[in-house]
Amino acid sequence: MGTFVPPARRAAALPARPPEASHELIPFDSGHAFPGILPDLSGIAQRALAAHRAEMLQYGERPGMPEMREWIAGYLRSEQARVAADEVLVVNGAKHGIELICRLLLDEGDSIVVTSPMYFTAIPLFKSFGVEFIEVGQDRDGMQVEPIAEAIAWLKKAGRPLPKLIYTVPEFHNPTGLTMPRARREALLELAAQHGIYVVEDSPYRHLRFEGGEEPTLKSLDPGGVVLHVGTFSKLIAPGLRIGWVAASRDLVHRMSLLKSDGGSSPLVQRLIVEFLAGDAHAEHARLAQDTYRSHRDLMLQALQKELPTFRTPHIPQGGYYLWLTLPPGLTDNVLAERAARFGVSIFPGSKFYAAQKGGWPRNAPAEANHIRLTFSHAGPQEIEEGVRRLASAWASLAK
Amino acid sequence: MGTFVPPARRAAALPARPPEASHELIPFDSGHAFPGILPDLSGIAQRALAAHRAEMLQYGERPGMPEMREWIAGYLRSEQARVAADEVLVVNGAKHGIELICRLLLDEGDSIVVTSPMYFTAIPLFKSFGVEFIEVGQDRDGMQVEPIAEAIAWLKKAGRPLPKLIYTVPEFHNPTGLTMPRARREALLELAAQHGIYVVEDSPYRHLRFEGGEEPTLKSLDPGGVVLHVGTFSKLIAPGLRIGWVAASRDLVHRMSLLKSDGGSSPLVQRLIVEFLAGDAHAEHARLAQDTYRSHRDLMLQALQKELPTFRTPHIPQGGYYLWLTLPPGLTDNVLAERAARFGVSIFPGSKFYAAQKGGWPRNAPAEANHIRLTFSHAGPQEIEEGVRRLASAWASLAK
Repeated sequence: MGTFVPPARRAAALPARPPEASHELIPFDSGHAFPGILPDLSGIAQRALAAHRAEMLQYGERPGMPEMREWIAGYLRSEQARVAADEVLVVNGAKHGIELICRLLLDEGDSIVVTSPMYFTAIPLFKSFGVEFIEVGQDRDGMQVEPIAEAIAWLKKAGRPLPKLIYTVPEFHNPTGLTMPRARREALLELAAQHGIYVVEDSPYRHLRFEGGEEPTLKSLDPGGVVLHVGTFSKLIAPGLRIGWVAASRDLVHRMSLLKSDGGSSPLVQRLIVEFLAGDAHAEHARLAQDTYRSHRDLMLQALQKELPTFRTPHIPQGGYYLWLTLPPGLTDNVLAERAARFGVSIFPGSKFYAAQKGGWPRNAPAEANHIRLTFSHAGPQEIEEGVRRLASAWASLAK
Repeated sequence: MGTFVPPARRAAALPARPPEASHELIPFDSGHAFPGILPDLSGIAQRALAAHRAEMLQYGERPGMPEMREWIAGYLRSEQARVAADEVLVVNGAKHGIELICRLLLDEGDSIVVTSPMYFTAIPLFKSFGVEFIEVGQDRDGMQVEPIAEAIAWLKKAGRPLPKLIYTVPEFHNPTGLTMPRARREALLELAAQHGIYVVEDSPYRHLRFEGGEEPTLKSLDPGGVVLHVGTFSKLIAPGLRIGWVAASRDLVHRMSLLKSDGGSSPLVQRLIVEFLAGDAHAEHARLAQDTYRSHRDLMLQALQKELPTFRTPHIPQGGYYLWLTLPPGLTDNVLAERAARFGVSIFPGSKFYAAQKGGWPRNAPAEANHIRLTFSHAGPQEIEEGVRRLASAWASLAK
């Protein structure tokens, strides 16, 4: 495994054998944290395991450690959502929360409403429950409500069952980065409540706002128990903890906890989190993450403007992890992603983010438009600049 | 919450208000570890989090951390089972492993073969997949093979589908404590392989053998890829870790890993385990657990003989966590369990351990016989003696 040498820009010929770059690909793909901001938990872990050995090493309560549920409920109340500790279920990361929601609410053949594009990891998860997707587009205010109303009207007319749930990432949407303003949220919830359809609010990036005013959580606007709020410590503290939560009605939380086959999420990790959150560690860490990722985003945007001015950014996200770019006509996202990997940078082609049908955002893009998602969270500043240069080289090698 | 005062044996009258004992119930019910043997992980955690911060706090690989899978594969090879690292899936405890097996293999209406009685936590888990139970009895050699063969023959004759899997705890069965000798294991596997039925070997207690010779794992006798071996660190190290594994064919492991919605079990905990297992910690801990639980078992048997000589122990287990007792005629297990709790000791009524039909072990017990399961792992020596005294008092108060 030799050292990767970045190919010269507009190289006369692409090497016949691709550079052996896989061991040091610059990661613009998956949603990892920047290693430089991962907190030092060594002292906390040492003290917690000394002081709480029995609690941390025995089985815990299936719905979650009481202190953990209290903290999460308090956190959500600080967001104006009226949530009690017993309306919180501790789970093994947000995806596990979504899975439990699916296991509880979905039967084979049910339909669900999602955005197009959408969080790609949720696609196979939903598919494994045999659902049909009703895909709706987004505008600058995020998920559009009118197409959902139209779909509901059509289903009613056809005598077919309504969708069981609406799944959305209302803040710094993955992959588009869009955030729904209050009015759009209210319209969505009004429609959902009117027809008794659950809304799954997947909100991993909420506290990663770089600028602009906060929008209320869907949970805080919930007109009557339709919102299931999914949160995680992956972005608040670190992904490796694998702890998240679902906040929902007492009854739903109880029924989901019965489906939780893991005997309670790790009390070792829950206690570690509770200790970390005591004091101001969480707020400090959030500020550090915001500052870091804001500068990563800005750096990536600058590099893109310099190196790849023909790649269009339909929306500059005010937070989160991702940029969604529209490619110039002529080349597909998959071809670019494959070539980029050979040039030493990993990206995700936009096609990965569609449950079934391509399109939906940006609304004015031609149907055949291609997109890519770039993650600015994981790579460091120098890597971001180098990664965009490699992407530009890959593009240039294709555009010749 | 006053201090619990054990009622005098054969008290003239049961207190009208039960003693307020709930906060200090002696735990003969759930399968917790004895707190006195929980290892001190504080130093290991501190060093690991300092040395492996990025690895422990980022997302891990979905099938498990490579070193973790290697260790498990090596552990199983030391049990003569030919298992490679990529035939191991790391999961969030054994129950999560069973759930993934169900999600992969079972459809609504399928049948599965289980023992009667069986591990009670698995009952609602299997039921949530809409299966029908084929319950078979046990003799001194554990799960009987003949009734399975008869059921298969009957189903074939009736043109009905065969069971999808056979679920068993071959070592120190929960709740009966029975262990299958080699010949019985071979007979079971021969039948399963002949009809293409998977065998799920749930083996949490295997290393907790107090005496007697080891039997081979079902996995080591697998005649051709029918065995899915489920293991856990809950009993090897501590329950609070919530890490276990499934060892199966490469293809099954891959397909289960795709169903694993948690984004990979916690790399923080996996690294902690790997560090603990380096050196002899695991073997030392296993010896300590064996010695401790052997003495707990003996103490409980002695106390039972002294205080409750009419309770029959159809089988003295050579390892594990549990005693299965047959009650004298006249009172049901549920009534005794409820009364025992009022006297300050928690026990599980035998009825809890039947998927559908009561009976099956001991074979010669009358159909109306009642049983209880007592856990000897969790409580300490003094608690064991006191708990059996309380149980005897509860019994006496009912037998009057």
